[in-house]
Amino acid sequence: MILYTIKELIEKGKNAIHEDVIVKGWVKSFRSNRFIALNDGSSLQNIQIVVDFDSMSETELKEITIGSSLKVIGSVVESQGRGQEIEIQAQKTSVYGQANPEEVQETILQPKKHSLEFLREQAHLRFRTNTFGAIMRIRHHAMFAIHDYFNKKGFFYINTPIITGSDAEGAGEMFHVTNFSLENLPKNEANEIDYSQDFFGKKTNLTVSGQLEAEAAAMGLGKVYTFGPTFRAENSNTSRHLAEFWMIEPEVAFNDLDDNMDLAEDFLKSVIAYLFQHCQDDLQFLDERFAQIQKEKPKNERTELGLIERLQYVLKNKFVRLSYTEAIEILKNSKPNKKKKFNYLIEEWGADLQSEHERYLVEKHFNSPVILFDYPAKIKAFYMRLNNDQKTVRAMDVLFPGIGEIIGGSQREERLDVLKQKMTEHNIDEKELWWYLDTRRFGSVPHSGFGLGLERLILFVTGMGNIRDVIPFPRYPKNAEF
Amino acid sequence: MILYTIKELIEKGKNAIHEDVIVKGWVKSFRSNRFIALNDGSSLQNIQIVVDFDSMSETELKEITIGSSLKVIGSVVESQGRGQEIEIQAQKTSVYGQANPEEVQETILQPKKHSLEFLREQAHLRFRTNTFGAIMRIRHHAMFAIHDYFNKKGFFYINTPIITGSDAEGAGEMFHVTNFSLENLPKNEANEIDYSQDFFGKKTNLTVSGQLEAEAAAMGLGKVYTFGPTFRAENSNTSRHLAEFWMIEPEVAFNDLDDNMDLAEDFLKSVIAYLFQHCQDDLQFLDERFAQIQKEKPKNERTELGLIERLQYVLKNKFVRLSYTEAIEILKNSKPNKKKKFNYLIEEWGADLQSEHERYLVEKHFNSPVILFDYPAKIKAFYMRLNNDQKTVRAMDVLFPGIGEIIGGSQREERLDVLKQKMTEHNIDEKELWWYLDTRRFGSVPHSGFGLGLERLILFVTGMGNIRDVIPFPRYPKNAEF
Repeated sequence: MILYTIKELIEKGKNAIHEDVIVKGWVKSFRSNRFIALNDGSSLQNIQIVVDFDSMSETELKEITIGSSLKVIGSVVESQGRGQEIEIQAQKTSVYGQANPEEVQETILQPKKHSLEFLREQAHLRFRTNTFGAIMRIRHHAMFAIHDYFNKKGFFYINTPIITGSDAEGAGEMFHVTNFSLENLPKNEANEIDYSQDFFGKKTNLTVSGQLEAEAAAMGLGKVYTFGPTFRAENSNTSRHLAEFWMIEPEVAFNDLDDNMDLAEDFLKSVIAYLFQHCQDDLQFLDERFAQIQKEKPKNERTELGLIERLQYVLKNKFVRLSYTEAIEILKNSKPNKKKKFNYLIEEWGADLQSEHERYLVEKHFNSPVILFDYPAKIKAFYMRLNNDQKTVRAMDVLFPGIGEIIGGSQREERLDVLKQKMTEHNIDEKELWWYLDTRRFGSVPHSGFGLGLERLILFVTGMGNIRDVIPFPRYPKNAEF
Repeated sequence: MILYTIKELIEKGKNAIHEDVIVKGWVKSFRSNRFIALNDGSSLQNIQIVVDFDSMSETELKEITIGSSLKVIGSVVESQGRGQEIEIQAQKTSVYGQANPEEVQETILQPKKHSLEFLREQAHLRFRTNTFGAIMRIRHHAMFAIHDYFNKKGFFYINTPIITGSDAEGAGEMFHVTNFSLENLPKNEANEIDYSQDFFGKKTNLTVSGQLEAEAAAMGLGKVYTFGPTFRAENSNTSRHLAEFWMIEPEVAFNDLDDNMDLAEDFLKSVIAYLFQHCQDDLQFLDERFAQIQKEKPKNERTELGLIERLQYVLKNKFVRLSYTEAIEILKNSKPNKKKKFNYLIEEWGADLQSEHERYLVEKHFNSPVILFDYPAKIKAFYMRLNNDQKTVRAMDVLFPGIGEIIGGSQREERLDVLKQKMTEHNIDEKELWWYLDTRRFGSVPHSGFGLGLERLILFVTGMGNIRDVIPFPRYPKNAEF
């Protein structure tokens, strides 16, 4: 007698007929005191269990309710019903844990409350819903695809620090980390807080990016990537922002910006192709959900493409590459700019692009994913490589339909003198980043990298509308439950 | 002309002869104005470049120094020297970035200073050393092996929260996370700090474990694992402790403690077997380093086994499984206990085992990795399943030679009433963990899991002596540099 996960059993299909098997899972539904839909999380699909209610006591039958957990011993038979090849004729059904039907109704099933918002408050239970199960399985496969991609390409996974003494990275506001009791802060003679007594002997923060450390690692190991949590202490209560999110940052010695664009495009396409291979059921389910939601929207707000179509469209199209300067020309002369439909009108070179501009380029003008490059130095970070025009830097953003920027990256400034100059202009203390400057002192090389916010990618591939629904336990202003 | 990494080229070996190639890397050594050993981090091995110094200017030759970075175009020829099959006859050598020989001497090579301690202060540069390069490559492959193992077994990777509102996990002291300016803390009417004004609306900490959240995920998805940073604010200035380290925590619905032991043993063996397959050069290098260090020790402190032997020994031996009660009997009657050689003498059942006891069992008594199980409830956490004897819990520790505990785990208490009772005994507020209790209300199931500290595993497989040398940028008391 073999213990199967439901995924394994369904994949075996008719080849399992006549086998005696054990399955374990949670009851999704129980009809006519006879048909149990059992799910164990291994797959979106349930296996149907047929119980012989004549041989069971009323007490036993009453314990089998939605949400209760079972062990079933039985033999696999061809299914008489529709929608499944096989089912299990139960010989013995035992309940591990009951689930009070009224509490289940109240906590998980209450139709009025059964919204995504409500489920966020029940984040510990939403793993059992079809939608969230599908998202979590896709999230897993996307993460594995990312590790697999970099491993195959000879990158080394580097864990950059989460607690950092630096606040010079400039990517956003930081959370403070301390071992002090806030009720009793030690003071020095000048009556200032004495950070030398804190755990790390100085002020420390949660990282906003592992890039600078990854650059140091790339200077020795060649090709590296980070994949870890990053933090923003910004009071952004939107459907696109999290205070804690996971970021992937590859960094490659000897790569210039063209190599960097090639890597970003190949990387995104590989991950999406992997999901098509490994998450068919779950993508199909979310595709139908997406279509349903589109139907409920007013016509002018609907997207042209379905979820799976949108993924195929990214796979098939060569990403358009154009400079910021070319993009500004297109946007200046665009209909929505001339008719003043943009919230931010494009008037001159140097303007920062908004999501509405990025989406216009991707969805209307080119009808293709777009990589913009060579942005004005003034609107970009200090570490990006200055072009010979002295005005633009070797930055790049990858723009996707429906979502805007999915990747931001650059070739890094490898020339010590230029980097120092840029730091001065950005008011960054050289002493803060002595070690970063060091990497330009000992055999500096051209190098490039980019950052991808994992949850942005998962939003895109699942078609969900709120980033809080694509991470198990979201952190946002006023919420750190669980 | 193809761009190769040095690893790719060396793997191609003699098949690459007559090819025109490009390689890029850093100079490890330059002999006789003619032979450059070039390394790009892809492998421990260097490729030898033979330059024609007659065709180069003196300035050009002077720029090629240890640590400088080069692009080399040349053709692959059979090597005349020993130790390598092939070398590159350079046609064109260009320097990307110079490295001032005096500064290199001072910063990286200074023999007196060139200790592991010194390199920790140069963590941004130590990626270029042979030892640290080997460790980082092994660390990468171990991490990939872990993801690969769980993915193949149908586990889903779950990102549990880093910032947590809970301080009930009980695994150790926690760091506080706040968005307050410590210089200006908001107070409420009672003149207490008003945490409702903090970013998350309450006190928050850095996680010490993702286990409780992983349990909730396993109750829906079946088999899950976490792999992320965890934190301890303990002032432990030892070679075995970090304030920030990476932990792997699988959690499996329906698994009992025997399944859990099977999983732990199979998992560890699989990861080590993977490293034998993928890190031969680096393991060989560290094996020689390990042997050298053993030689320098007094005879009675040397280990019996070499590094690679020790890994093979773990692979080959079936882990001995015995109960805490049996272990206490063995220890009570052991020579070191009777001769009072243990620092902590074992006198009665209920004693907590120290590293010296664990190592006696592994290294002397059984000469095999050991899994101890069924510990006294009093010395273990509240969530471990109580045995029928009411005295012991279904805990397990996996003990390794040279290192002691490498994995700690348990079957979890799935019975709501028993769990509540245990929480009362451990002074844990039910309100704090309402959601955790909920998972026992809706179809509770037996389940088990364990935790593995990644850096402990890397210590074991690299034979390094200090945990600060197996993570890129270590965090410990008074140190958060980089």
